[in-house]
Amino acid sequence: MPHKATFYHAGCAVCVDAEQRLARALDRAEYAVEIVHLGEQPGRIAEAAAAGVKSVPALVMEGNPYHINFGAALSDLGGGA
Amino acid sequence: MPHKATFYHAGCAVCVDAEQRLARALDRAEYAVEIVHLGEQPGRIAEAAAAGVKSVPALVMEGNPYHINFGAALSDLGGGA
Repeated sequence: MPHKATFYHAGCAVCVDAEQRLARALDRAEYAVEIVHLGEQPGRIAEAAAAGVKSVPALVMEGNPYHINFGAALSDLGGGA
Repeated sequence: MPHKATFYHAGCAVCVDAEQRLARALDRAEYAVEIVHLGEQPGRIAEAAAAGVKSVPALVMEGNPYHINFGAALSDLGGGA
């Protein structure tokens, strides 16, 4: 059964690049990757913050946050993080 | 033929975690992943800097640098970057 990975982004150029290159490069036999656009789903900002996400793009793998380069601070997305 | 991906690190805790979780999660059918410890191979710091790497751990995928969290600045590794 695949592990869970969630890629949080906000549609920024840095985010799109990281999604297309890095998030898509994960082994889908090992990881079930969910893509979450926090600008479109602001209700999930709190979930990202709880996982330790400080900025986007970020990939949360089995609960561990990996910030990939820097697109925008989570606090700038209106989540109060 | 797999694309090239190079994971640069310096043996730090953040680096080891990113290597074990993220670098190993890449689809090996798509990416040939090389792991480079810049503390042990300082001669490759210039190569990392040329690819745009500013800190480790970082993954360079087809020439594009992705900084993953923050372990150490490349300039602190003695490469003059």
